[in-house]
Amino acid sequence: MVRVGIVGVGTVGESVVKILKKNKDIIQARAGKEIVVVKGAVRDLEKTREVDIPLTTDPFEITQDPNIDIVVELMGGVELAYRVVKSALENKKAVVTANKALLAYHRYELQQLAQDIPFEFEASVAGGIPIIKALREGLSANHILAIRGIMNGTCNYILTKMERGEGDFNTILKEAQELGYAEADPAFDIDGYDAAHKLLILASIAYGIDAKPEDILVEGIKGIEALDFEFAKEFGYKIKLLSIAKKREDEVELRVHPTLIREKELIAKIEGVMNGISVIGDVVGETVYYGPGAGGDATASAVISNIIDIARGGNCSPMLGFKKPLEAGMKLSQEILSKYYLRMVVEDKPGILAKIATIFGENNISIESMLQKAAKEEKLAYLLLSTHCCKEEDIQKALSTLKSQQFLKQNPFMIRIEEYGNY
Amino acid sequence: MVRVGIVGVGTVGESVVKILKKNKDIIQARAGKEIVVVKGAVRDLEKTREVDIPLTTDPFEITQDPNIDIVVELMGGVELAYRVVKSALENKKAVVTANKALLAYHRYELQQLAQDIPFEFEASVAGGIPIIKALREGLSANHILAIRGIMNGTCNYILTKMERGEGDFNTILKEAQELGYAEADPAFDIDGYDAAHKLLILASIAYGIDAKPEDILVEGIKGIEALDFEFAKEFGYKIKLLSIAKKREDEVELRVHPTLIREKELIAKIEGVMNGISVIGDVVGETVYYGPGAGGDATASAVISNIIDIARGGNCSPMLGFKKPLEAGMKLSQEILSKYYLRMVVEDKPGILAKIATIFGENNISIESMLQKAAKEEKLAYLLLSTHCCKEEDIQKALSTLKSQQFLKQNPFMIRIEEYGNY
Repeated sequence: MVRVGIVGVGTVGESVVKILKKNKDIIQARAGKEIVVVKGAVRDLEKTREVDIPLTTDPFEITQDPNIDIVVELMGGVELAYRVVKSALENKKAVVTANKALLAYHRYELQQLAQDIPFEFEASVAGGIPIIKALREGLSANHILAIRGIMNGTCNYILTKMERGEGDFNTILKEAQELGYAEADPAFDIDGYDAAHKLLILASIAYGIDAKPEDILVEGIKGIEALDFEFAKEFGYKIKLLSIAKKREDEVELRVHPTLIREKELIAKIEGVMNGISVIGDVVGETVYYGPGAGGDATASAVISNIIDIARGGNCSPMLGFKKPLEAGMKLSQEILSKYYLRMVVEDKPGILAKIATIFGENNISIESMLQKAAKEEKLAYLLLSTHCCKEEDIQKALSTLKSQQFLKQNPFMIRIEEYGNY
Repeated sequence: MVRVGIVGVGTVGESVVKILKKNKDIIQARAGKEIVVVKGAVRDLEKTREVDIPLTTDPFEITQDPNIDIVVELMGGVELAYRVVKSALENKKAVVTANKALLAYHRYELQQLAQDIPFEFEASVAGGIPIIKALREGLSANHILAIRGIMNGTCNYILTKMERGEGDFNTILKEAQELGYAEADPAFDIDGYDAAHKLLILASIAYGIDAKPEDILVEGIKGIEALDFEFAKEFGYKIKLLSIAKKREDEVELRVHPTLIREKELIAKIEGVMNGISVIGDVVGETVYYGPGAGGDATASAVISNIIDIARGGNCSPMLGFKKPLEAGMKLSQEILSKYYLRMVVEDKPGILAKIATIFGENNISIESMLQKAAKEEKLAYLLLSTHCCKEEDIQKALSTLKSQQFLKQNPFMIRIEEYGNY
């Protein structure tokens, strides 16, 4: 028998308890052992819950309980969760966590602490999609050339609805909140940080890189307008919030931002709250993983798969794929190379285009395609254009110069363009 | 150091040797050990090869060599491969194989023989896609409600080209042979047996079912015509060769056949030689896995991932997910339930439709949609129709009755229809 204690019995924790009961027979047949939840830790003992397990308000009662073999950490947050998980490891208990923020900040300390104690975290990235296992074990023969992932369902839901013309950003966000697809405080999702945490976890497994959220470029989906989807459609793109990792020699770019991606790519076809991750290996080529990235049951599916892994006797892969950071010899790149899309509102009069072209030329940027559209306001026009691949610092210089031009009636809006093979 | 012997140094074996060399640094960083190929067994020592390793013509020299830790079986075929792998296990050597035919026939004997010796076979299903690991470990909390997979690149290439109107079956098959996408003797692929072998392996992992290729319905892609793609398009379907597993209570349908599948489904969008597998779990919902299903490098990626798994210290999951057949309590269903598409060439005169409708009615089959098209020949018409869900035995009875009708100018042609949620 394997005895489990759960710290944090919210939506996911309740699903874990319920599914361990509902699918008891097949889980026992697969695990080779009975799996029993013996205790849960919660903040509020009075709250009505759908599951009936002994509860405590002290998480350390779980981590120190000699009758518990596996501590499942589902409380979220960083510092208290770190202390809880650390205590579990110190008491030689296996750990399963779904906590991406904890791992975004403390994954290497935790690997160091865990040593040979099983520490699994499949649910921390893309919910029910077994992407940790795929990357850490299934693709281990490969240099990972690129990861491009839709890892935040809230953003993908909003962008899908905007693309279909079903409302503007604020209207759809409000609707998503009512449907439970977005939090009351949506900043963590729509500003890109949730997707960044997940990218950092995958970047450790693919490249051995120990970066923190503050170290990488993170941009959310605010500011995107209907017009941007028109340009995207015209030129064969979709707009997605992508978590991107790209290897160039021994450096890796890590970034999260709205992205124009070719509509023929499989991940461009992923709609609504679903997640999908494209991984390009130097040996295998492209593989794609699709599924639900959030929700109690999907997350519980991943959590329980890890409990079963441990009950079966564990997995000998290092927790993060490499035993030490930078063991793969790759480091975080300070330079970003990309193609760019720009939306500008300009005065509709002769000579403006030449001025803009000159600014791009002076910054080593070459224009790939352009679309001019009449604006609602008289004497104004929208100028939508895409560039060939150039340096981020050059586009930033050009944007900065453009902002000070009188003929620009709004700050220019920029979205990066991702092309398969453009790495 | 981990010492590998390879039995069968063809396209995949050469890729394995080359990639272990090319990606030596990162593979060693991930595996924690150096991996060295020390010997290969081949049929013909004189053949020119791109790799330089010591060779023998005796596979048992590899399986009995005390200096070899892992035997990689890439020779293909069933009986000799079985003896080779058995000998390796008897000599306590870990085994990695890409041989789907071997596993389609002998997987449970091999699991029994292997016991605690690592036996891995990620490359045997869908080449470079880590679907074995996903199903055996990543989705282990789930009852698997359905698996629907494009597992044969040759068939998907031919069907994709036919759908695009780039030729008829025979023309495209010849072209595929010239491009190396189809074998000189293509029967194994286009008659569905390759896809069936892979389905049987997955069915063991998902359901613990020990079926042989002879036990299940296997139909290939011959007989499909341009008109079928027209009907498919008209009603929002694609035509794919699918390997299908469907759970109903404690019974599982296993079948391989051309299938009409809703074009909005992600696996319907998979084109050319690529593979893709949709797995529906009762907890997680649908997850999809996409990638290259064949080719030296993609297959080598999976083979090497298994070598790394073993070098890392192995994986404690039972080889086939369950320790014994039928441990999951599920057995092979003898009944098939499906929707059906039928193409008929009939005399274009009054009363025919009523006669056909009567035959269907008498066999408990209800018609969902119908399309009548003028045939090139005068006084003949094409009748294309789809049914609601019914029993395979009822449709077979109706087909048999139809065949004896004088107004039918060809044997009716049938394709099964797969609807998401129709299980």
